[in-house]
Amino acid sequence: MQIQLTEQKQEFNKRHTKTRRRSLSRSISQSSTESFSSAYSDSSEDESSPKDKLQKTSKGLSDFCIKNIKYASHGRREIEIAEQEMPALMVLRKRAGGEKPLAGAKVVGCTHITAQTAVLIETLCALGAQCRWAACNIFSTQNSVAAALAEAGISVFAWRGESEEDFWWCIDRCVSAQTWQPNMILDDGGDLTHWIHKKYSTMFLKIKGIVEESVTGVYRLYQLSKAGRLCVPAMNVNDSVTKQKFDNLYCCKESILDGLKRTTDVMFGGKQVVVCGYGEVGKGCCAALKALGAIVYVTEVDPICALQASMDGFRVIKLSEIVRQVDMVITCTGNIVSRCFHFTMKCKNGCIICNMGHSNTEIDLVWTYSGCVTNFLRGRICGIHLCFCVSVTVVSQALALIELYNSPEGRYKQDVYLLPKKMDEYVASLHLSTFEAHLTELTDEQAKYLGIGKHGPFKPNYYR
Amino acid sequence: MQIQLTEQKQEFNKRHTKTRRRSLSRSISQSSTESFSSAYSDSSEDESSPKDKLQKTSKGLSDFCIKNIKYASHGRREIEIAEQEMPALMVLRKRAGGEKPLAGAKVVGCTHITAQTAVLIETLCALGAQCRWAACNIFSTQNSVAAALAEAGISVFAWRGESEEDFWWCIDRCVSAQTWQPNMILDDGGDLTHWIHKKYSTMFLKIKGIVEESVTGVYRLYQLSKAGRLCVPAMNVNDSVTKQKFDNLYCCKESILDGLKRTTDVMFGGKQVVVCGYGEVGKGCCAALKALGAIVYVTEVDPICALQASMDGFRVIKLSEIVRQVDMVITCTGNIVSRCFHFTMKCKNGCIICNMGHSNTEIDLVWTYSGCVTNFLRGRICGIHLCFCVSVTVVSQALALIELYNSPEGRYKQDVYLLPKKMDEYVASLHLSTFEAHLTELTDEQAKYLGIGKHGPFKPNYYR
Amino acid sequence: MQIQLTEQKQEFNKRHTKTRRRSLSRSISQSSTESFSSAYSDSSEDESSPKDKLQKTSKGLSDFCIKNIKYASHGRREIEIAEQEMPALMVLRKRAGGEKPLAGAKVVGCTHITAQTAVLIETLCALGAQCRWAACNIFSTQNSVAAALAEAGISVFAWRGESEEDFWWCIDRCVSAQTWQPNMILDDGGDLTHWIHKKYSTMFLKIKGIVEESVTGVYRLYQLSKAGRLCVPAMNVNDSVTKQKFDNLYCCKESILDGLKRTTDVMFGGKQVVVCGYGEVGKGCCAALKALGAIVYVTEVDPICALQASMDGFRVIKLSEIVRQVDMVITCTGNIVSRCFHFTMKCKNGCIICNMGHSNTEIDLVWTYSGCVTNFLRGRICGIHLCFCVSVTVVSQALALIELYNSPEGRYKQDVYLLPKKMDEYVASLHLSTFEAHLTELTDEQAKYLGIGKHGPFKPNYYR
Amino acid sequence: MQIQLTEQKQEFNKRHTKTRRRSLSRSISQSSTESFSSAYSDSSEDESSPKDKLQKTSKGLSDFCIKNIKYASHGRREIEIAEQEMPALMVLRKRAGGEKPLAGAKVVGCTHITAQTAVLIETLCALGAQCRWAACNIFSTQNSVAAALAEAGISVFAWRGESEEDFWWCIDRCVSAQTWQPNMILDDGGDLTHWIHKKYSTMFLKIKGIVEESVTGVYRLYQLSKAGRLCVPAMNVNDSVTKQKFDNLYCCKESILDGLKRTTDVMFGGKQVVVCGYGEVGKGCCAALKALGAIVYVTEVDPICALQASMDGFRVIKLSEIVRQVDMVITCTGNIVSRCFHFTMKCKNGCIICNMGHSNTEIDLVWTYSGCVTNFLRGRICGIHLCFCVSVTVVSQALALIELYNSPEGRYKQDVYLLPKKMDEYVASLHLSTFEAHLTELTDEQAKYLGIGKHGPFKPNYYR
Repeated sequence: MQIQLTEQKQEFNKRHTKTRRRSLSRSISQSSTESFSSAYSDSSEDESSPKDKLQKTSKGLSDFCIKNIKYASHGRREIEIAEQEMPALMVLRKRAGGEKPLAGAKVVGCTHITAQTAVLIETLCALGAQCRWAACNIFSTQNSVAAALAEAGISVFAWRGESEEDFWWCIDRCVSAQTWQPNMILDDGGDLTHWIHKKYSTMFLKIKGIVEESVTGVYRLYQLSKAGRLCVPAMNVNDSVTKQKFDNLYCCKESILDGLKRTTDVMFGGKQVVVCGYGEVGKGCCAALKALGAIVYVTEVDPICALQASMDGFRVIKLSEIVRQVDMVITCTGNIVSRCFHFTMKCKNGCIICNMGHSNTEIDLVWTYSGCVTNFLRGRICGIHLCFCVSVTVVSQALALIELYNSPEGRYKQDVYLLPKKMDEYVASLHLSTFEAHLTELTDEQAKYLGIGKHGPFKPNYYR
Repeated sequence: MQIQLTEQKQEFNKRHTKTRRRSLSRSISQSSTESFSSAYSDSSEDESSPKDKLQKTSKGLSDFCIKNIKYASHGRREIEIAEQEMPALMVLRKRAGGEKPLAGAKVVGCTHITAQTAVLIETLCALGAQCRWAACNIFSTQNSVAAALAEAGISVFAWRGESEEDFWWCIDRCVSAQTWQPNMILDDGGDLTHWIHKKYSTMFLKIKGIVEESVTGVYRLYQLSKAGRLCVPAMNVNDSVTKQKFDNLYCCKESILDGLKRTTDVMFGGKQVVVCGYGEVGKGCCAALKALGAIVYVTEVDPICALQASMDGFRVIKLSEIVRQVDMVITCTGNIVSRCFHFTMKCKNGCIICNMGHSNTEIDLVWTYSGCVTNFLRGRICGIHLCFCVSVTVVSQALALIELYNSPEGRYKQDVYLLPKKMDEYVASLHLSTFEAHLTELTDEQAKYLGIGKHGPFKPNYYR
Repeated sequence: MQIQLTEQKQEFNKRHTKTRRRSLSRSISQSSTESFSSAYSDSSEDESSPKDKLQKTSKGLSDFCIKNIKYASHGRREIEIAEQEMPALMVLRKRAGGEKPLAGAKVVGCTHITAQTAVLIETLCALGAQCRWAACNIFSTQNSVAAALAEAGISVFAWRGESEEDFWWCIDRCVSAQTWQPNMILDDGGDLTHWIHKKYSTMFLKIKGIVEESVTGVYRLYQLSKAGRLCVPAMNVNDSVTKQKFDNLYCCKESILDGLKRTTDVMFGGKQVVVCGYGEVGKGCCAALKALGAIVYVTEVDPICALQASMDGFRVIKLSEIVRQVDMVITCTGNIVSRCFHFTMKCKNGCIICNMGHSNTEIDLVWTYSGCVTNFLRGRICGIHLCFCVSVTVVSQALALIELYNSPEGRYKQDVYLLPKKMDEYVASLHLSTFEAHLTELTDEQAKYLGIGKHGPFKPNYYR
Repeated sequence: MQIQLTEQKQEFNKRHTKTRRRSLSRSISQSSTESFSSAYSDSSEDESSPKDKLQKTSKGLSDFCIKNIKYASHGRREIEIAEQEMPALMVLRKRAGGEKPLAGAKVVGCTHITAQTAVLIETLCALGAQCRWAACNIFSTQNSVAAALAEAGISVFAWRGESEEDFWWCIDRCVSAQTWQPNMILDDGGDLTHWIHKKYSTMFLKIKGIVEESVTGVYRLYQLSKAGRLCVPAMNVNDSVTKQKFDNLYCCKESILDGLKRTTDVMFGGKQVVVCGYGEVGKGCCAALKALGAIVYVTEVDPICALQASMDGFRVIKLSEIVRQVDMVITCTGNIVSRCFHFTMKCKNGCIICNMGHSNTEIDLVWTYSGCVTNFLRGRICGIHLCFCVSVTVVSQALALIELYNSPEGRYKQDVYLLPKKMDEYVASLHLSTFEAHLTELTDEQAKYLGIGKHGPFKPNYYR
């Protein structure tokens, strides 16, 4: 089963071998859908390509291309469940719904198409935007959700299992509608931005900005900017404080135990574990493992993080010093570990090797298979990429769109910007109600004493 | 005893009412000295002002002004103990001693004069610098240490219990020696810089830079810079990652329990505590208190920090909701708390109120006394400002001096700079040996994969 | 799915409504087997009753009754994996294998039949015993494991999905073999003991003792003893320190997070949780939940446990005070909670209710369904009974058998005994190698100082 | 200073070399008194022996012998503060005050005489008892408290700095008053019981029982019982659950950090620490040290405790494996460590050695001095015996007196008994209000289901 999982992942990543992309997050509703969707998509009667079919919504609309419009009602239920789990976005929809801050916005989007992003898309519409949407990944689309969006009148072009050609065809159909020209881009990975650059560069004259959330996409934008080829302002929502903490520290603290237990049923008490890397991901993993009774060692290249690990109670060692005695190796480096250290050859029988990094090259599975087969047989490998924290991301995306769309001419140049601190704080504040957390308000006297506004931003930019 | 402590503190801070200054850190050797020093300074035969006495070292030097040169041997022992407790600085002394990176540097300094700073000063000398030194605080000088420095040939002008007039006289004597003109400034609080600006502004033509470590002094430098009146580059060593983490997160995590136990002998298990502010200081306090079995609530104004508190397992409430039921209130806001919330009137009998912030105005004692005497009688107040982390600070200061002194003309403009990431990482790496922490080194392949140098800097500037 | 799970459980427990029985533990190998086994048992060609078939092992033996002897090779692999996961039992097999401490023992057993218990049974054989075995539960038998045991020459009478009649038939076949009369009983639940009492009471003349590990079975033994009807010594291995700590504290600390995540994908950070009961199970749950960032409240009836909860940092409240605001209710009372408190009516929408107690009556599902349907729809219920700790149990059982079988006449009377402290310590010591834990040995001087033997027992009986 | 401390301790323990006695607990009020008392007792005018002076209370009473009746008002204030800090005892006084459960009781007591025990003594009086009291330790008496008790009409015979002869004289004066014969004994260490046995054994005919709380005293009672020489029932209040948890687990968890910081100002983050012994004391120390960021190793002789340490996340090693690399050695063995392992010769420079055990022979200081002077110079030794938990002890003592005094003839034989579970639970319940902990009450149905009384006892005797 494990090998299968891994092989599937490798195929999954074929298109993306060279991009570093956090793979699909999963959640309750999604996992239940998966079985549902696969049931449908596996069924033999549905082998035809969506491109070859003409489908219509109950209202007679047909400007979309998806697997099967009949899945719409199931997808709608998925979206409704997701709405309950994303109160922050719903609060935003409610608060800003009256003002229609995105009135006139024509947003072309390219993201995973899941119940969660559907809530985002429909929120953008509720705030006044018109949207056309493609999938940023050929495997991650929830067909039922795509159907529900189409049925709701949104022009979606996506299905699970697109070919490479399908992938670009869908993006193209989003961008180049006859009666419609986008003025905002919401991208996840940079493929949409890349396509417009390549095929429709004059469109940038009308585009007010790009919002990008992935590591890869942001990297591409900085490259463009450096090369002087970025024509519009771009908002990097990947590196805001709130998103970073949730995507890395909190998400991994929550998911490391779960992922290991589900895959291996290992007991944590008394287990010796080495965590490679003490960045946010490593910090989260170490905290959770220590709390459950594991004995945790850390490897680091960065002395600042190494010192933090020491102060937090973890011995900082080199992998070679400890690899023979540990029961688990968790990599959180964002780097390539296994090829270099050849550690799998030395680890003890039954040692569990787990990649918590966002790059699937962090542990070189192919190499591991071919280079040390006996060794693999000795260990078990699990790839964990859970993320409970989609809500923080989509709220950040929505606010970034609003900020770029409404900012006065000239505030943002043709450059890449972080989400303004105040927006970052607003993302956080929208999530507080989940915890029934009550914020204190500064008095005038206190705000003056600190020399800041009563409603923030509260901290210097460097504060994390 | 508590009242006395507080009153002494108020007098202590008389000069500094309007400055926000972290008060004197303390350590083993210092506390033992305190009794020693006070024994001497209290003795009736020594009431004369140091300014009126001519003293000579055993080698006949007299370019200094201190309480009593006879204390030198005791002070030397204090310094030797401090050397053992500051291995990082000693490693730096050893490593860089051969190169003499400060050869030709003439450093005028104004800091607390304690065994720890003495190790710094002597390290600067070992690296090639000439030094003249005054105290940045009229109460904090360890007279025996000042004597040991003088005996070692360093021109020190400082004693415990200087008058306002003495204070500026000492600074002036450091700056304006006949045969000597400073080319580097090491300041703590900005008084030395201010004095040179006011009286000897032409000196700045020869000065290569200022190193400043206090919040107040840094604030003054930014004001100068904004006003276009900063004539030389300045290095802000207060806001580097390593120093911030140690001064705030780690220091407070270590000291909150200790401070409360020493002052009140309180038991933490089961106590209900509200911590006001969830910045680095608040995070450290909350972690320690929770770990010892207290039930901790948090108040926050900043939604990002509030969300972090929630995710870390602390209920975020308003002070007014909880003040009646808690056993302790810990303020870590950097703001003025008590006057605004009038909380002391509502807290229950025996409630302990503790200021962990660096401003002594965080809880307005005077107001607390006069405004709600019965109330005070009900609570107990402790002011804790421990810092185990002097080593990180002084190493940062030394490296900042080296960086500014050796940087090629033009690298640093007339502006305020953070310590370069690489130097920050070096500060951290010098402290790793204390923990027998073994750093991993990147392979060429890995460094290339990440697009960074093999020896750092390893993280983006915003990473904390 | 959840409802189904629950209904299945109710049927599962039909036979046992009045017994309080920890339901089937699960583990890696078992869960993988389940799908395998069900595949086989679901197949239509195999609907016939095992009782109607004559099967033979490859060596021609036929004194057993199981689903299908063909599953033996698969079952053997399961047992081999289990052997790796139960090093303690394998060490015992190795250490005591030479002495054959059970030579002459004829053990009739009635336990769950899983890969883990198979390792126990084969260990007993390796130590010299002859064994006949039945299942203590009509649903929990791993058919492939039963086949492997039969193939190895052990007389097993058990299959998954026995009828009530089958159940007693199997037990009877174990007890009453023509050429064989048991002299030791290993029971789990008391059904075997009950059957012998009822049908073959004269057998007790030859029986040296009973080993019983379940709460129910132990309870029955104490009843017999009180009534003066216990004819042989019995060893209660349920209440030894090592087993109690593992079954309750450590097992639940490990499994609560996992169980909740698998069932509900809930995020723990910032969630408000009330844990009902602060015994060993509650202590484990609270520690794990707190460590992952949940805000945990405790309800208790016992002031000693309530005081412990307070000192450990948990607010002790009544359920009614907190039920409206919590996100989860975890019951660990060993008592009947829901019927009495009617709490489900008051809990908030989406509140998760989880029974960690070992009684499935802890939350009265039937009542919950009928009495407050809307409410149920609001909450989700999960039943978690994981146990990683089978190894501790089976080693305790083996040692108890050895102790009873080898003790000189008269040491044990017709009464119920706890596992002797020294044996309890030996169970623990056999598990230390898993953690590479190195025990210190007392010197003669130290043992004398403490007034104990050099090799234990080390603590008073009451120490836990 | 440290050496002085140690020498004083050695003298302090001269009388008690062979007894294992937890030394004097300390608390807020006491520590402030100490300076006060020493001021008085050091004054040259007061060198005369209390035995030579005739003193009278303001009411003219003179049946007492203390340092100076003039200290009474100061002592009264100390007692009043202690009353606030011991709410449990005050609640008992209030609840039981009406019934006078000790009416007719004549209690002779021999304990430390501190503000806390004064609250106990006055509670006994409030419940109807008449009391005469001596000190169980020649150095621990708070003279002001003794004065306050005398002034309140209680016959106290005790002062700080008694000679050996004084010590027994005081006890004798308590026992053998002309108009008074004791019928209850409250002892701490067994000296009082020993004296009555030796000199007034016929008194036992009238004595209803002995309450003893020290390890030594309890040990002596068991010896007497074994030898058939115990003439009355005795209650061992040392081993009740509540007292054990507080004296050991909670007390040490609270005090280890504090004790180390006060004595050495050590920073815990990243420090490597070995804790010898993982009983209740070791468990508390390990939990606190780990929580503050220390890397903790454990040594154990008992496999059950070793397994617990492993599961709790601590590597179990032998001292010899780790002694060279650790920064601290904490002994919690209740055994003699240093002489045997000669470990101090091998520990690294600056290593801190700390005895948390209750025996001052745990680390053999004399041997350490003479045998490895250089070594001692290298380490620092601190002896920590804090106890915040006096309240639990004195409430247990009071309840034990009530139980013995009121039990019907014959319930207790001439043997040593543990405090009945129900009383133990009552001790706990009296302390719950401190934490505003709200106990849940069993319904009739639930109590029946569990087969216990609605008001306890709730757990089997072995539960801890």
